[in-house]
Amino acid sequence: MKAKVKKVLLAYSGGLDTSVTITWLKENYNNCEVIAMTANVGQEDDFDFIHDKALKCGASKIYIEDLRQELITDYIYPAVRAGGKYENKYLLGTALARPLIAKRMVEIAHQEGCDAIAHGCTGKGNDQVRFELGIREFDPDMTIIAPWREWEISSREEAFDYAEAHNIPLPITRETNYSKDENLWHLSHEGLDLEDPSQKPDYEAILELGVSPKQAPDQATPITIDFEAGNPVAVNGKKLDPIALIQTLNQLGGANGIGILDLVENRLVGMKSRGFYETPGGAILFHAHEKLEELTLDRDTLHFKQILALKYSELIYNGLWFSPLRQAMQAFVDHTQSHVNGQVKLELYKGNIIDAGVTSPDSLYREELATFNEDSIYNQNDAEGFIKLFGLPQSARVKK
Amino acid sequence: MKAKVKKVLLAYSGGLDTSVTITWLKENYNNCEVIAMTANVGQEDDFDFIHDKALKCGASKIYIEDLRQELITDYIYPAVRAGGKYENKYLLGTALARPLIAKRMVEIAHQEGCDAIAHGCTGKGNDQVRFELGIREFDPDMTIIAPWREWEISSREEAFDYAEAHNIPLPITRETNYSKDENLWHLSHEGLDLEDPSQKPDYEAILELGVSPKQAPDQATPITIDFEAGNPVAVNGKKLDPIALIQTLNQLGGANGIGILDLVENRLVGMKSRGFYETPGGAILFHAHEKLEELTLDRDTLHFKQILALKYSELIYNGLWFSPLRQAMQAFVDHTQSHVNGQVKLELYKGNIIDAGVTSPDSLYREELATFNEDSIYNQNDAEGFIKLFGLPQSARVKK
Amino acid sequence: MKAKVKKVLLAYSGGLDTSVTITWLKENYNNCEVIAMTANVGQEDDFDFIHDKALKCGASKIYIEDLRQELITDYIYPAVRAGGKYENKYLLGTALARPLIAKRMVEIAHQEGCDAIAHGCTGKGNDQVRFELGIREFDPDMTIIAPWREWEISSREEAFDYAEAHNIPLPITRETNYSKDENLWHLSHEGLDLEDPSQKPDYEAILELGVSPKQAPDQATPITIDFEAGNPVAVNGKKLDPIALIQTLNQLGGANGIGILDLVENRLVGMKSRGFYETPGGAILFHAHEKLEELTLDRDTLHFKQILALKYSELIYNGLWFSPLRQAMQAFVDHTQSHVNGQVKLELYKGNIIDAGVTSPDSLYREELATFNEDSIYNQNDAEGFIKLFGLPQSARVKK
Amino acid sequence: MKAKVKKVLLAYSGGLDTSVTITWLKENYNNCEVIAMTANVGQEDDFDFIHDKALKCGASKIYIEDLRQELITDYIYPAVRAGGKYENKYLLGTALARPLIAKRMVEIAHQEGCDAIAHGCTGKGNDQVRFELGIREFDPDMTIIAPWREWEISSREEAFDYAEAHNIPLPITRETNYSKDENLWHLSHEGLDLEDPSQKPDYEAILELGVSPKQAPDQATPITIDFEAGNPVAVNGKKLDPIALIQTLNQLGGANGIGILDLVENRLVGMKSRGFYETPGGAILFHAHEKLEELTLDRDTLHFKQILALKYSELIYNGLWFSPLRQAMQAFVDHTQSHVNGQVKLELYKGNIIDAGVTSPDSLYREELATFNEDSIYNQNDAEGFIKLFGLPQSARVKK
Repeated sequence: MKAKVKKVLLAYSGGLDTSVTITWLKENYNNCEVIAMTANVGQEDDFDFIHDKALKCGASKIYIEDLRQELITDYIYPAVRAGGKYENKYLLGTALARPLIAKRMVEIAHQEGCDAIAHGCTGKGNDQVRFELGIREFDPDMTIIAPWREWEISSREEAFDYAEAHNIPLPITRETNYSKDENLWHLSHEGLDLEDPSQKPDYEAILELGVSPKQAPDQATPITIDFEAGNPVAVNGKKLDPIALIQTLNQLGGANGIGILDLVENRLVGMKSRGFYETPGGAILFHAHEKLEELTLDRDTLHFKQILALKYSELIYNGLWFSPLRQAMQAFVDHTQSHVNGQVKLELYKGNIIDAGVTSPDSLYREELATFNEDSIYNQNDAEGFIKLFGLPQSARVKK
Repeated sequence: MKAKVKKVLLAYSGGLDTSVTITWLKENYNNCEVIAMTANVGQEDDFDFIHDKALKCGASKIYIEDLRQELITDYIYPAVRAGGKYENKYLLGTALARPLIAKRMVEIAHQEGCDAIAHGCTGKGNDQVRFELGIREFDPDMTIIAPWREWEISSREEAFDYAEAHNIPLPITRETNYSKDENLWHLSHEGLDLEDPSQKPDYEAILELGVSPKQAPDQATPITIDFEAGNPVAVNGKKLDPIALIQTLNQLGGANGIGILDLVENRLVGMKSRGFYETPGGAILFHAHEKLEELTLDRDTLHFKQILALKYSELIYNGLWFSPLRQAMQAFVDHTQSHVNGQVKLELYKGNIIDAGVTSPDSLYREELATFNEDSIYNQNDAEGFIKLFGLPQSARVKK
Repeated sequence: MKAKVKKVLLAYSGGLDTSVTITWLKENYNNCEVIAMTANVGQEDDFDFIHDKALKCGASKIYIEDLRQELITDYIYPAVRAGGKYENKYLLGTALARPLIAKRMVEIAHQEGCDAIAHGCTGKGNDQVRFELGIREFDPDMTIIAPWREWEISSREEAFDYAEAHNIPLPITRETNYSKDENLWHLSHEGLDLEDPSQKPDYEAILELGVSPKQAPDQATPITIDFEAGNPVAVNGKKLDPIALIQTLNQLGGANGIGILDLVENRLVGMKSRGFYETPGGAILFHAHEKLEELTLDRDTLHFKQILALKYSELIYNGLWFSPLRQAMQAFVDHTQSHVNGQVKLELYKGNIIDAGVTSPDSLYREELATFNEDSIYNQNDAEGFIKLFGLPQSARVKK
Repeated sequence: MKAKVKKVLLAYSGGLDTSVTITWLKENYNNCEVIAMTANVGQEDDFDFIHDKALKCGASKIYIEDLRQELITDYIYPAVRAGGKYENKYLLGTALARPLIAKRMVEIAHQEGCDAIAHGCTGKGNDQVRFELGIREFDPDMTIIAPWREWEISSREEAFDYAEAHNIPLPITRETNYSKDENLWHLSHEGLDLEDPSQKPDYEAILELGVSPKQAPDQATPITIDFEAGNPVAVNGKKLDPIALIQTLNQLGGANGIGILDLVENRLVGMKSRGFYETPGGAILFHAHEKLEELTLDRDTLHFKQILALKYSELIYNGLWFSPLRQAMQAFVDHTQSHVNGQVKLELYKGNIIDAGVTSPDSLYREELATFNEDSIYNQNDAEGFIKLFGLPQSARVKK
């Protein structure tokens, strides 16, 4: 039974699906008013075109929200500080943007007096969860409409047919395409031939944010990144605001074939899926941040933080960004980051991020201790006592 | 006070240090008999030369033990199955060989009636712990002599002087060199300019097992690896015995600039140190094994195994290979590996390991579930119920 | 839309709900045949009465399966060895029995050619998940009917009305009762006044397996338990088969007010609920097993096992007994248990389990090391070296 | 070789050992000046007597520092909030006080211009590590003297002889006693007959802070504790300052036989030891705090916090209170505690802490969800979708 709604805020991308959705919502929800909202999270889109298209498709109004800076400072950088990669691999590009978009949608819905929020996520993916939990965080009673879980349309082809039958402006061709998600941090690709993990993706055909390692220049690109309290603040010695910084790293990484990930991952909804990800700047940033932590975090903290990061990234992947556990974990992480200051030098070369030296005012590395040469600090005899006590449990076991 | 010993088994490498040690042991331990033992764990050494040199330096006898196969099947492959990288990075090359060498030394010491075992590890490193815990596992009462913790010699220069003064055969030059450890699995470099982590290592000067990404061929090298129960069994479709398999991967990886690691790590004895590692075949093997696990391990198992692997690798790094915890963890790991069967295709290209497709008879990936096209299995409506219950704790929290 | 089924196997308890279900299934599923199955997992039931009642209510046949021994040896003891308590408290009484019952139901359903299995669990609890995952493990295509999620009956009162209207034999009174689950391992109570966690339960009214601490004898009851490989094998020096052993411990524990737990727990389906549990023998067993592990497990193993047990118990609670992760964890656990042999002495006194001494042939406790008196083994000077290296990371941090 | 020191600050208890130490320090360290420092952490001591005795024994001065309030608010309460019990059992009584005493000693040593700090811990225990790491945290270059690791005295008997020979004031008898550590939070006993874990301790002879369950009153004592942000603030409705609050709980707990722990634990220095602990108030506090968390923490947070608490308590036990990891963990913990507000009712009865109801303005328990009666919130049909997706990984596995 359809909920009774009068005014729906729709997450609008400008693509075929969400354009169809406007008509479908009106048709199925008592000719309700539809307001569109498009988040500018850094994707390569023509927002003027989107604006006009939404209105042409029947939206009464469209919000185009620039969320780029907030995305970086309040979602991406915290995840960089935590070192959270889902299943040790995926940099959470989509998962980090969804909660922010959901939060902003609730704000607009409240402002506009909408009684429902609609999104275009399929019923098979993670994004429906991320959106809906994000919405409920700020309005647990908001009606949520997920057309893909409701309607009869079950493929791209059928969406075309529906659009034609309803005079919805169509893309030029019926050519299908990968399912993509793009923001300032990443571009993901799913579907089509990627659904067969036995096949290598056609890098040249897919890549958009950069080139493949093979197409990258024959010369390495040196780069430095400065960090303060775990956040990047400068590239190549130049202070950059967050948006410019990520753009710069994306450009440098993309040009050098960096940050390509081909992954079979475990979705929250219980199935394995294969994603192909481009995160050129992100890959550099994670690498550099880890490198700096090698110098500045003590062993116990590093080891526990690596365990925590696995769970932390799982939370974000599962749409639990706003959960108390993610927040408490962030408090842990941020406490560790006060000493993560310094400069990381790298060389970008055909897909490789090559370490070229790291320095920190907070380094815990002591050359005078580590050296093979004589030193006056470390008494090698201490090691004998250490080994004896370290090995005492063994001796109790072996000698019995 | 020196222990009273009559017959010492010495871990002998053939280098300056352990050559000096033979003389020093006799001089300091009542002219005791010294038997040398050299483990062939796959390092590039001239074992005939070592044999003769040990005797020239005063050893009464030398054992040269080929431990290569055992090293791979009983130490390296278990670690591959576990996916254990110390601090998420280091493939444990040295740490895996030490316990095996220690175990064999105790066997020989018992056979020869030795009353002490001596090793040439410094008092600052991890290896002294690994050796001594390995020895005590099989003979907790064996006297262990660690000359570097006892003698006055505190640098390479002084070792030269000592050798000259005692007519010990010298290497041709006094040229110092990195502290290296080599076996079939890896080659590590420490010391000299590497002691300054702000500096990039001179790849061309250091690398021995392969070339740098920049020197690697312009063409990618395709490769397939077959796994059975988590162990590699064939390369490029050809069944290989363990030694040949690792050698093949080392050759392929080395030629393509694979498996170079520049790391500031946390030693057990409490200091940070900087190591530079070459593990060409190992890097390929870990990558391929992880890739196959993406397809064949279920989510819960994969996620917990990733946590366990962090602790598992820490145990090995710390010399606790023979500990009950490492063994119980191995039981966990090996239980998960029965389904890790299949073939991984890769391309090796200038430092990159590029995924080129993976197949498994035990794959848990279901294209019919993951697809964006219509499917008859997955009812998208189920997702609504799922999200509601998954989000129920949130709703209790937010609505209060 | 109702599935088309001809022959349903129903999990039958003999109570009002499942009696009503027989009629309801016939009425709603085309007058299908209903076969009842009652698992004897040690609950206090009159199985002859249940047998006759099932047939009177319209079942064509009833299986009464004695699963007690298998429950103990294959489900309860493994959990004791693991030390798994959900949220560090709940001994998993219900959760351990469900998978076994489900497994047996599939076997009978196959034998009888049933095309569906029905259970009487509500849609709010954990048991529906445990049952359904258990069934799907052995027959993923079996139709599962969960009347409580389908029918209009939404309270005990309405079930009475339905029964009256359909001439289903009624219990004597309409008096409502706690929702209970009983087996050889435990008895749980939920519902009614327990739904208000601000109120203390009426111990005297609720308790069935024993008395409250206040009603227990004024004299302590001494007891010894012998373990082999982590399993209890004898009580008070007498070898007992598993059923007799648990019964003995239940009797002893119950009489002394042991094993009562009042808990607000987190259900899998996302809500908190309050349960009141009696596990008299189980509480003794867990305590004794932990006590023996204090002596026989080394530190590293104990510490990691305590982490693992938290996740292990979560899996069981969530119905994932048959999952690969639970099984791999069991392999870990069982590997650790080979040395968990010995005898634990306890005193049971008014709710207290008082330690009265523990001995083990595999004890790792060394009095000669621990003693405050002189010893010849431990050189206190070793501690100085140990502390220096143990504190080295601190010194690098503090001195910078 | 003895360090050259002129003025030593000695941790002074007033007992035989530390009295002997004053003389021994002067004799062995060039007649150095010895200043005594006694921390009042809540132990039952006659501080006037201690004052005079120190001076009689040769100390030039004595500081008696009241650290009770700081101990509770800055060390004990943080550990209560974290729920950290070492090996899931030990409430860390000694381990929490040591770092505070060490910190205060460094402050006094600096103030007095001392060039060394001496403590009376043996070389076999944890306390030497806790003291020395605490000292080095605030002065990494301070000379530390640990007479028990240096001198010839190796038993209580020999200490008596030394005292007699040096005219040091003696206790009345040579009667040996348990090695005890007392503060406001606990009293521990080690040594003598306790060194044999096969024997039950003589409760009546040992207990000092309370009585055994058997000696406790036949009537239960009801009690309420109010918490704010995870800290206890009132008992039985009466706001109490921290010292009074702990004293009140100790009195109530002790009188009712609460908080007795008989444990074989794993010391940091590698051996197992047996401790007998009295923590009457602490046991009540931990229980009450956990009870309140049942209501106020969401599942994910609770589960992860239970894992973290295991490591957290290990850090404290090992003397790493001031470590970055303990502090970062505290940030995590404290973030979770903002909602841990409410009142816990308990009954204390002969060793039992019986739950008698818990309430919280921040409760996440929803009776309307948990109830077995009809509710209008939870749609039981949602469970079907939930179970299907929750079980999807199983189905991929089972159906292959």
